[in-house]
Order: sequence, then C-alpha cells, then structure tokens
Amino acid sequence: MTPLEIIPVEGLGEITRGTDLAGLIADAVELRDHDAVVVTQKVVSKAEGAIEAVDPDDPLSHKAIVERESVRILRRRGELIISETTHGFVCANAGIDLSNVERGTAALLPEDSDRSARRIRDGITGRTGVRVGVIVSDTFGRPWRRGVTDVAIGAAGLRVIQDLRGTTDAYGRELQVTEVAVVDEIAAAAELVMGKSTGIPVAVVRGLDPTLFTDEPASVRTDLLRSPADDLFR
Amino acid sequence: MTPLEIIPVEGLGEITRGTDLAGLIADAVELRDHDAVVVTQKVVSKAEGAIEAVDPDDPLSHKAIVERESVRILRRRGELIISETTHGFVCANAGIDLSNVERGTAALLPEDSDRSARRIRDGITGRTGVRVGVIVSDTFGRPWRRGVTDVAIGAAGLRVIQDLRGTTDAYGRELQVTEVAVVDEIAAAAELVMGKSTGIPVAVVRGLDPTLFTDEPASVRTDLLRSPADDLFR
Repeated sequence: MTPLEIIPVEGLGEITRGTDLAGLIADAVELRDHDAVVVTQKVVSKAEGAIEAVDPDDPLSHKAIVERESVRILRRRGELIISETTHGFVCANAGIDLSNVERGTAALLPEDSDRSARRIRDGITGRTGVRVGVIVSDTFGRPWRRGVTDVAIGAAGLRVIQDLRGTTDAYGRELQVTEVAVVDEIAAAAELVMGKSTGIPVAVVRGLDPTLFTDEPASVRTDLLRSPADDLFR
Repeated sequence: MTPLEIIPVEGLGEITRGTDLAGLIADAVELRDHDAVVVTQKVVSKAEGAIEAVDPDDPLSHKAIVERESVRILRRRGELIISETTHGFVCANAGIDLSNVERGTAALLPEDSDRSARRIRDGITGRTGVRVGVIVSDTFGRPWRRGVTDVAIGAAGLRVIQDLRGTTDAYGRELQVTEVAVVDEIAAAAELVMGKSTGIPVAVVRGLDPTLFTDEPASVRTDLLRSPADDLFR
C-alpha cells in the first residue's frame, strides 16, 4: 500500500448563505479521482443558511432550539443535554453550537447532511469531471471516553461501511469484525489537519483504497446510525 | 499547514512472544522526530505473550476468559458481551478476539497498554535517538453508530487529549469544545492504511502538530477513559 495523504484546504474565505462550496473547493485544490473531500458541518450549515439568531448575552438561549431539534432527550447534566436529533444523531446539544459563527447566531445541523454531501459531490463532478467522495463531518463526544473526535454526518460517493464479511485474516480464519466505519475514520483523520481554532474547514484524503468509492447512493443516516431498537444503550 | 502522511509499515514478518517490536519497526522504516507510530494491539499482545489457549472446535470457548477479564458486564445480547475490562476499557468481549492469531489461541489485551507503548517508544529512542510518539491501537465498536473504528488503548510521548481551553475561534469567541481526543483520531487515521485482512500491523503518521508531542508521562487509561462516575451512560 502507498502512503495516505491528508491535505488541508486553506484560503476558502468566509462562507455565507448561498456560497457555492463545491466551486470554492474545486478552485482551491486540484482534485483527483478517489479523493475523499471532508467538509465540516459548520461551513455546510452556513452555506445552506442553517443559522438561527440567539440572544448574544444569554449563553443558554440556544437551549430552546436544542429541545426543538431533539426527538428524545437521553441524558441531562447541568447545561449539557445529550439527545437524539430529528435526523437520528445522538450528540450533545443537538449538534448546535456557537463557535466559529457570528456572535448572536447559532449553527444548526444541515437539514439532510447526506443530501448536503451529495450536492457538493455533484457540484465538484459537474465542474471538474473528477469522481470524488464527499463527507460532511462534525465533532461529537461519546460514552466511555473523554474528549471529542470528528465523525461523518453525511456522505456521498463512498461506502459508508466497509463490509469484510467473507474475507479472511492472515491465518485463513474468517474475520469476526466485519463492518468498519470507514467514513468515521476518514473524518477523524481529516480533523488532524483542521484543528478547531485554525479555521480550516475542508481537507482532502488522498490514497484511499479505490474499492471504498462507489457511485451508488450512500447514506450515513440510513447505513451508519443504529436504530434505537438495535442500540444496546438506548 | 502541510499535508499529513500516513505510511503503512510492511514486511515486519511474524510476531511471537519476545519479538523486539521497537527494533523491528526501527529497522523497517526511517523514523523522524514527531512521527506518531501506531501499533495494533494484536502484535503487542503477541510480542508480550498475552495469548491463551482456547478450544479450537468451540467458538465460544473464549467466553470464560471474557468474564474473567471483566469487572462489570454492561450488556449482553446473544453471544455478545459488552463489559468494562479490568483495565477500564468498555468494549465487546473484553477486547479478546480470535482473528489474526493461531487457531486454538486467543489474544488478550496487553496487561498495561500504556506501558506497552512506553516500552516501544523507549526502544525506538534508544536505538535511533529519534523522539516519536507511540500509540497502541485496537478496534472497538461504540453506541449510537454501527461499525467499528480503531481507537487508542495506550500511548507514550503524545498528549492524549488536546486541551483547547483558553483558545478562541476565528471570531474571537472562546471555544466550547475544549478537549480533542487526538490519539483516537490518529489511531483511526492509521487504520485506513492497515485494513483488517491485509496484515499491516504498524503505521506511521507524519506531519502532526509538534505541540501534540511531549516527554511527560502519557496515559490513555488515566487521561482518556471516563470514570464510571463521570460517564452518563454507565
């Protein structure tokens, strides 16, 4: 295998409602077939106008939006709400946060983050003819372990789960661990060049196994999220 | 920022009890200061002899070991046991699995995976003079999301959590998300070049922010694992 490269995409400038993200990205970096383009939720939400006004002097004014965007509150501790969002994500504060947006506003999750990824992919393909994968990423906490990592909340052009059923290990034994959440691993890898304060909202992961890419419909929401019934902790 | 490179380390050969992993790695790849070397749990356990015999004809014969290695069973479904291990990890089957080991044996987690990482780091530094970070990685599932990803179970020479408290976003606002589990993101990134069936147990992540590295003691177990009291889902 050849090395994988993770390339930060800098100089995209300010993203506002209506910004053509696909065009900006295609202009900023020379993309190749089988590149995975990771775009953070924040700029996708800004480009889509998924921004709401909040009281800039009340640090809890977005909590009403958090409750509205949740279908089920799983845990509360102090100001922290862990809920299942209308989209099916389990995360803190319904994925709404106040950093890297203008004072007095809050960024919501995109209405349909798989569709967001699909639009960016179609835009890039239409403009360049190159067939890339696109992941919309966000920063979530998790049980058991402290700290946050970036995960995929939307995907297009990529197999969301790498299914290893039927493959064998180096000893010829059928593999027990059969489903790898590759899009989450790609999102985590991309975060390593983005940082939280450096303002780099896009990264390109180059050199991935070409079999991870597909023109078939991909969906984080359908294929990667556990249903509550299938989830041992909900 | 410059691109990050993730380099698979191939040709390490068979690892058995007593194999000098640090020496093998240092011979196989020319390491540089601020490289992060990710080593999968399986080869660490093999080199440390953390292997036990199981009945090769009984697919459930390792379950007794799973129960012995657990301090608390969180969930059971069919053959699946989610437990908290004696080390403090919450994972399926106490991290014990049967793939990529000889038939009739099971690989246990290393006794102290932070110490394992430290030993490999000391071995590499002693041999080459280069100051790297070392992560021992393993493949865990998680609530809410299907599929597995690689996470860090041991670390040396790296800040386990990147603490962003006091830093500000592009708008000058203090960041809300203050602790990034960088070692988990590095472990996930490394998995992308390892695969489960390709038998590549080591990868080097090159180009990380140098401030992530430290000579101070690092510990996944102490710094990254939530205590049960701090955990909203235990």
